[in-house]
Amino acid sequence: DALSHGQFVTVYNFLSLVIAAQLFTAVFLVISLPRILPRYRNAITVAIVVCGIAAYHYFRIFDSFRSAFVTKSVGGTGTYTQAVGESFNEGYRYVDWLLTVPLLLVELVAVLALARKVQSQLLFRLVPAAALMIALGYPGEISGDNTVRGIFGILSTIPFLYILYILFSQLSKSLKNQPIEVRGTLSRLRFLLLLSWGVYPIAYLLPLLNIAGSDAWVYKQVGYSIADIVAKAVYALIIFRVAKMKSYADD
Amino acid sequence: DALSHGQFVTVYNFLSLVIAAQLFTAVFLVISLPRILPRYRNAITVAIVVCGIAAYHYFRIFDSFRSAFVTKSVGGTGTYTQAVGESFNEGYRYVDWLLTVPLLLVELVAVLALARKVQSQLLFRLVPAAALMIALGYPGEISGDNTVRGIFGILSTIPFLYILYILFSQLSKSLKNQPIEVRGTLSRLRFLLLLSWGVYPIAYLLPLLNIAGSDAWVYKQVGYSIADIVAKAVYALIIFRVAKMKSYADD
Ligand SMILES: CC1=C(/C=C/C(C)=C/C=C/C(C)=C/C=O)C(C)(C)CCC1
Ligand SMILES: CC1=C(/C=C/C(C)=C/C=C/C(C)=C/C=O)C(C)(C)CCC1
Repeated sequence: DALSHGQFVTVYNFLSLVIAAQLFTAVFLVISLPRILPRYRNAITVAIVVCGIAAYHYFRIFDSFRSAFVTKSVGGTGTYTQAVGESFNEGYRYVDWLLTVPLLLVELVAVLALARKVQSQLLFRLVPAAALMIALGYPGEISGDNTVRGIFGILSTIPFLYILYILFSQLSKSLKNQPIEVRGTLSRLRFLLLLSWGVYPIAYLLPLLNIAGSDAWVYKQVGYSIADIVAKAVYALIIFRVAKMKSYADD
Repeated sequence: DALSHGQFVTVYNFLSLVIAAQLFTAVFLVISLPRILPRYRNAITVAIVVCGIAAYHYFRIFDSFRSAFVTKSVGGTGTYTQAVGESFNEGYRYVDWLLTVPLLLVELVAVLALARKVQSQLLFRLVPAAALMIALGYPGEISGDNTVRGIFGILSTIPFLYILYILFSQLSKSLKNQPIEVRGTLSRLRFLLLLSWGVYPIAYLLPLLNIAGSDAWVYKQVGYSIADIVAKAVYALIIFRVAKMKSYADD
């Protein structure tokens, strides 16, 4: 596929925006860590690691994008076509998710600071389900065949629904034991999670709906970029706010 | 040998996954270090160094892989063949192991926090045996001759069996002196070690079993990648958990 100059710079700038957002959310959290009570530091440490992993992968995605599209126009204002010998590696996203999606759930459970037993029970369900969801999506993503894509998409949706079920049923029970100040924030956090996570299966569906072409591809990259900022950086900042409020409440 | 596009991106993504896993396990441990009692910090520091060394070598392996295989296809979706003037350097793995395998054993002995004398006795046996095991494997790995490979493989297996003997006989004795909460974890850790370390000699055997071709090569790279994540990053996180539980128990 060919990209116009405008499409090329749009993707380019969004990818760079994500690098900056993830990297400096991590930096902010590293500097702010001492202001949190030790018992909530694990949640924030996991948040730092998640944003760091995302920054790493966006550096890679950015480089992959830059070398995958080339132009022969003077000043680079012409059409960009696919380079010889280089492919844009969409797989980095799945590698990233395989590590970060389970960790995002660890982050959420850690900030709740539940009893050790309840905590392990929740993680024992959420973490493998999250890894399975991503691992099942990957073969569909790299396959050129829409039937294969559809089958793995459905398989991957099973753990996805399971995760949402656990988050909205089991986790809601433990909201009652949280300090009153943070209950509202935590409850809204689940909806932010639902909204941002929902972007990924929708983007996955686009080729099945016969939405192809360079416009669809550009929207997909921009959509992933925004969803990644919300699901990781904004999410981390809300978790940080909860940890800070709980630190005050406990003190 | 030639790799299909699918094989190429599979190896590519696994190598990148290992970089991210090792690098951010190290970052996580650096940030979490102050939460461990000083007497267990040595174990975690060694774990950080091990994951750091692995990340460094995987950056190298990744770059070596990228320059060793090239394609002439537009968009990079065709067949990848070996580049002119570049070889894939499998030797990086042995350099990595020469440093990290002895350190993995140091890490394990350090977290046990045994009496100084018992500790030096164990390390005096384990560390040279580990270095010898890797050094003896190397000439076999780089030799194209299957007889040479076989001989050095057998020689290298002697220290390997010796290490396993020490871990399962001598080390088991000191389990009794560990806090009750961590005994189960430590005992399971030895099996994780056996399982992940066992991958390496099996991969070494493949050429002797006449299993060649690009599929075998891809499986070997993927197998090494998963084994390296388990043997270093997952292992480090379990050692961290033991150190944290012991810190609480001592407090
Ligand atoms: C259900 C489903 C999927 C779900 C993906 C999700 C939910 C990804 C979440 C990613 C996050 C949160 C990234 C971090 O920022 C796939 C794998 C696309 C495959 C199709 C079916
Ligand atoms: C027995 C044996 C070997 C053992 C290798 C091992 C046990 C390597 C362990 C590596 C680790 C643990 C890496 C870190 O993640 C060799 C050298 C392949 C040569 C053939 C015989």
